[in-house]
Amino acid sequence: MRATLIYGARDIRVDHVPDPEIHRPTDALVKVVASCICGSDLWPYRGFREVTEPRRIGHEFVGLVEEVGSEVRTVSPGDFVIAPFMISDGTCPSCRRGVQTSCDHSSGWGGPDDGGILADGGQGEWVRVPLADGTLVATPEVPDAGLVPGLLALSDVMGTGHHAAMAAGVGPGTTVAVVGDGAVGLSAVLASARLGAERIVAMSRHPDRQQLARAFGATDIVAERGPAGVAELTELLGGSPADAVLECVGTKESMDQALEAVRPGGRVGYVGAPYGAELPIRTLFTNNITVGGGVAPARAYLPELMAEVLAGTLDPAPVFDLELPLAEVAEGYAAMDERRAIKTLLRP
Amino acid sequence: MRATLIYGARDIRVDHVPDPEIHRPTDALVKVVASCICGSDLWPYRGFREVTEPRRIGHEFVGLVEEVGSEVRTVSPGDFVIAPFMISDGTCPSCRRGVQTSCDHSSGWGGPDDGGILADGGQGEWVRVPLADGTLVATPEVPDAGLVPGLLALSDVMGTGHHAAMAAGVGPGTTVAVVGDGAVGLSAVLASARLGAERIVAMSRHPDRQQLARAFGATDIVAERGPAGVAELTELLGGSPADAVLECVGTKESMDQALEAVRPGGRVGYVGAPYGAELPIRTLFTNNITVGGGVAPARAYLPELMAEVLAGTLDPAPVFDLELPLAEVAEGYAAMDERRAIKTLLRP
Repeated sequence: MRATLIYGARDIRVDHVPDPEIHRPTDALVKVVASCICGSDLWPYRGFREVTEPRRIGHEFVGLVEEVGSEVRTVSPGDFVIAPFMISDGTCPSCRRGVQTSCDHSSGWGGPDDGGILADGGQGEWVRVPLADGTLVATPEVPDAGLVPGLLALSDVMGTGHHAAMAAGVGPGTTVAVVGDGAVGLSAVLASARLGAERIVAMSRHPDRQQLARAFGATDIVAERGPAGVAELTELLGGSPADAVLECVGTKESMDQALEAVRPGGRVGYVGAPYGAELPIRTLFTNNITVGGGVAPARAYLPELMAEVLAGTLDPAPVFDLELPLAEVAEGYAAMDERRAIKTLLRP
Repeated sequence: MRATLIYGARDIRVDHVPDPEIHRPTDALVKVVASCICGSDLWPYRGFREVTEPRRIGHEFVGLVEEVGSEVRTVSPGDFVIAPFMISDGTCPSCRRGVQTSCDHSSGWGGPDDGGILADGGQGEWVRVPLADGTLVATPEVPDAGLVPGLLALSDVMGTGHHAAMAAGVGPGTTVAVVGDGAVGLSAVLASARLGAERIVAMSRHPDRQQLARAFGATDIVAERGPAGVAELTELLGGSPADAVLECVGTKESMDQALEAVRPGGRVGYVGAPYGAELPIRTLFTNNITVGGGVAPARAYLPELMAEVLAGTLDPAPVFDLELPLAEVAEGYAAMDERRAIKTLLRP
C-alpha cells in the first residue's frame, strides 16, 4: 500500500510500504476514507523535532473496517470508524475515567504499539489498528460522504478544542478568550459556543481565520497581542479579562498571552503541546488562576460529539480548507507550513 | 495598646503602640477577643523573609466591634466579627466573584492599607479594620466562648484548607491525598470530609497530627514520603493515585510529592505560598493534571462555614493545641517553630 513517511525537515514522501495485516486478536484493519495533517505534524516537518530515520506519520483518520481479530467485539467489517489520535485499551483505570491518553497500554500512530509492532500512520491507504475495541468508535451506519470531514475532525482538533474548553470550565455565562487561530483554536471557539459561552473572543490576526472564528461562534475578534491585546479584551468584556482562556498553541508567547488574558480566579485550559511554555507558579498563586488541560482524550468525547455531527447540529468540517489526494500530501504540509491552509484533508 | 511586632528572625516582642482610631468613614475599630499565629508567620520568624524594621504581625483574629465609621453598614458596635486574612472592599469585580484576595483595594494586616494608613496586625489588643463592610463578617449574635476558637479558624486555616479542596474538585466519591500536616493540611482533611470525599489519606509522619487527622475524617494515614509514599497511597486506593491532592505546604518537595500522588486526569489544589515549588508543564500536560488554588479567599467562604460552626456541625477548633496570653506570644512562635504546637491561639 501507499503511506506517507517523513524523511526529515520539509521532506514528506508517499512510499510503497507492506500491506498491514492482523497481528493480534484485538487488531482491526481499516481502509482509510480520509485522513488529515495536524499542526503537531508540522513540528518535525519544520525540524523542531529531529527525524533520525524515515518514519510513518499522521494520527487522524476515518475509514471502513475490513477485517477484525477474533477478540474484537465493538466494530465489524463494513463499519465506518473514527480513530482518535491515540491508541487505548478502553479497560484500564485511566480509560474508564475518560483519560484514555494515559491508558496503561497507550501508544501512537505511525510507530510501535504497546507490544512493539508498527501501528500504521493515518496518512496512508490502510491502517492496522491495535486494541480496536478500546480505540475505535463506529458510527451507527455508514455516513453520507458529506459528513466525513466533520467526523474526521473529531479524531483530534475538535476533541482537542473541546478539551480546552472543558478544562477551562466553559459553560453558560462564561466569557472566553481563545489564544491561537489554528484548527484547534478555531475548534475551541466552536466548542465554547456549543457549551453556551456568553462571549467568545478569538485572538487572531488573520482575516480568513477571523471569518471562520465568527462562523464558529466568536462574538468578538482581537487582533492585537501582548498588553494591547489584553487591554482590548478587557474593555470588550466590560472591565475584566476572561473567565476562561483557551491556550491552543503551546509556545511561551501564547501561554504568557493566555495567563495575561485571564481574570483573577479564572481558568486557563491549554491543549497545545508545550514548546517553551511555562507556568509561573507565583503569578498563578497570587491570582488564583487554575490551569488545566493537556493532551486531549479525544476518545472520551467521540460518542457525544459524533452524535451531534451525525445529527447535523455540530459541524467542525470548515476547519478543512484544503483537500488533496494522498499523492500530494507534501503540498498539504507546505500549504499549512506557509499558512496558505488551516488544515489539509487527504483522500487516499 | 499592646501589639506584637517582629523585629527579626526569632525576635518577637509585645510592644506598646498607639491606640488605633477611625481614619475613614469605612473603618471599624475591633477589640480583639482571640487571635492566632499562622504557619506563614513562621517564614519571617525563621528568617526566610527579611525583616528590615520592626513591624506588626498577625492576620487572623476575631473580636467585638467597638466603633464604626459613618459609612459602615453591615457591622455595628457590639457585633462579634471574624476577620479574614486579607482586607477587601466587597464591591469590586473580583470581590463580587468571590475572589476577594484579588480585590481592587486589597491589602494585608499589619501594614499600610490601600490608602497608606497602617492596618493593625491581628496579634494585638485592637485593630483598625479598613473597608469594614467588605472585610468583616458578623455572627448573628455574640457566640458562646466555646465557639470562639472554631470561628477564629475560619479567618484563615479552615478557609484555606477548604479552598484547597474546592480547587481540587473534592466531592462525593473523590479520593483525596493531603500533603502537609500543619493546621492548613489538617483543615484540608476536615474540609474534604465535609465535602463528602470517599477516601482521605493524610500524609503525615507525626503521631499527634495523624491522630487529629483521623479525628477530622482521614480514612488512612501514609507516613512514607517520596516514591514509597506514592506506592503506599496507590495501593490503599486500589491501584491508582488520588483523584485530588491538596498541597498545603508550598515547598518544592511538597509540590513534587503532590504531583506524584495525583492520578492522570486528577487535580492538585495548592494553598501553601510557593517557596521553591514549581509546576512542570510537560508532566502536567502529558498526564492531564489540573492545578488550581492560590491564596485562599477566606472571605468568600466565611458565611457558609460560619453558619456550620455556629450550628455545631463543623468544628475546626482542635487545630489549636496551644493557648497563650498575648504577653507570651514569643513562646507561641517558638512552640510552632519547634513543632511542639500545631497552632497557637492568643488571648489579648
